[in-house]
Amino acid sequence: MGMVNWMSFEQVLNDKVKETENVIGAYLPKEQGWAKTVMEAMNYSVNAGGKRLRPMLMAETYKLFGGREKVIEPFMAAIEMIHTYSLVHDDLPAMDNDEYRRGRKTTWVVYGDAMAVLAGDGLLNFAFETALKSFEMPACDAARKARALSILANKAGIYGMIGGQTADIEAENLGSQVTQEHLLFIHEHKTAALIQAAMMVGAVLAGADDAQVELVEKAAYEIGIAFQIQDDILDVTSTLETLGKPVGSDAKNNKTTYVTLRGLEEAMQEQKDMSNHAVALLKSLEEKGFQNSFLIELIESLITRIR
Amino acid sequence: MGMVNWMSFEQVLNDKVKETENVIGAYLPKEQGWAKTVMEAMNYSVNAGGKRLRPMLMAETYKLFGGREKVIEPFMAAIEMIHTYSLVHDDLPAMDNDEYRRGRKTTWVVYGDAMAVLAGDGLLNFAFETALKSFEMPACDAARKARALSILANKAGIYGMIGGQTADIEAENLGSQVTQEHLLFIHEHKTAALIQAAMMVGAVLAGADDAQVELVEKAAYEIGIAFQIQDDILDVTSTLETLGKPVGSDAKNNKTTYVTLRGLEEAMQEQKDMSNHAVALLKSLEEKGFQNSFLIELIESLITRIR
Repeated sequence: MGMVNWMSFEQVLNDKVKETENVIGAYLPKEQGWAKTVMEAMNYSVNAGGKRLRPMLMAETYKLFGGREKVIEPFMAAIEMIHTYSLVHDDLPAMDNDEYRRGRKTTWVVYGDAMAVLAGDGLLNFAFETALKSFEMPACDAARKARALSILANKAGIYGMIGGQTADIEAENLGSQVTQEHLLFIHEHKTAALIQAAMMVGAVLAGADDAQVELVEKAAYEIGIAFQIQDDILDVTSTLETLGKPVGSDAKNNKTTYVTLRGLEEAMQEQKDMSNHAVALLKSLEEKGFQNSFLIELIESLITRIR
Repeated sequence: MGMVNWMSFEQVLNDKVKETENVIGAYLPKEQGWAKTVMEAMNYSVNAGGKRLRPMLMAETYKLFGGREKVIEPFMAAIEMIHTYSLVHDDLPAMDNDEYRRGRKTTWVVYGDAMAVLAGDGLLNFAFETALKSFEMPACDAARKARALSILANKAGIYGMIGGQTADIEAENLGSQVTQEHLLFIHEHKTAALIQAAMMVGAVLAGADDAQVELVEKAAYEIGIAFQIQDDILDVTSTLETLGKPVGSDAKNNKTTYVTLRGLEEAMQEQKDMSNHAVALLKSLEEKGFQNSFLIELIESLITRIR
């Protein structure tokens, strides 16, 4: 028998994260000219680490539906810029007033409040500027690119992530009076919307049909909610060292979370059920020949992640 | 002789402002759902008045080159949203800390810091979401729309307006040591870039050729710089009542402006020269049959505006 040379999921994941960071890095601005500082602050924010989950989910969903072109790359960079800007603005003294994220000083601590506002604005604007570069690339028709851009804008905006952040801020004033309906709105919009955008953009650019895009939207909803519940769980069960950010902040802020509403065990069970259902949805595509085992493993890894 | 029924420029302008506000209003979000507050804050910001100069310049440049379709409308709304978000974020305590604008309380004073950050983000994102709706409209081909979107994103972002704001913040720390080169970079990017975007988007969507778009870009540069110099002039020569915002803030902040660098009289003369040259450029298109007398009057009115 020959030598079996399997790479572990972790090894493959590490390679994919590096590939993804190379793609993102190629689209970041060069730090030069009179506006150099905002570019430094943007790059500091994007290069502060993170799981690169959204661009990876996008690339893997694109591959799932047979996509093989570089047209996905500006969109991968764009969604990471959008995710990053939301963190930069979230961390501001005017918002969550967080000084550390992923074990590093947050953008406003390093560059000041004003520059952090501009760096966030810069990243959001540059995300669209970057994704629009796809129109200069030969692969797939303009209609697909326009649709992908519209999905990205919709899921990132007031009917998506920004809507979720708004509802989240209002929930803070309600404390323990937040209902499950309100909390699910927050999780769906603040977290799941951008996961949906990632996977739907991948599907649309690869030429998936409407029913397939809808299936992906559903699966991504469950992945996003499960991902957010895991965040709520880790805020209770993890440590500063493991998580790279302070734990117990939800309790400190008297915040209603899935864990406070349902209890830790039930939250963990529901989170697992949702992930499993999302995986089952995606596996149902296999009979039509659409298969990506790394994507499935990536999603499954989310329920067991520790940070 | 029949009765001559000329409307004055001011009457026509008032009507055009109202038309423009109707177009913008049609694209503003309905205030409903769990994220209602951010939508209210966005609409409050956009409805706080203003000259609507950018969407008007866009529509009139579109008409100049023979554009007659509704495809311009989502772009008109988009550029006003971008202009408005920049004001909302500029006014934040983390930035200029302004409590009044156009005689009304600024967004953060009414809705709080956090919601003002989100309202600005919401407007910027919604601007692209809105402009992307043009792809669902039949007029002109996708390539023109994509090019118009790219111009808008570029001129609003770190290579445009946000770049100018960055250089402006850095200039504040330099006080009287700011050079003319630095100041011109600020004016070009913070102010002229969005005027360029407005007029270039109008030209591109109407089908202007590359040389014409370039001519418009040059004229808009001069209009933008002249417009900003007028701002600097009014900060010295106007009153709170007329201007609708505090005067003398540049001197108070020890800010280098075109007026402090060149003196009031020379600044006024240069501003007039630039406006005249911009008008001459646009009038040079008349020999090819491209003519819009209202656009010329609008630009000329900018050098004599008092607020």
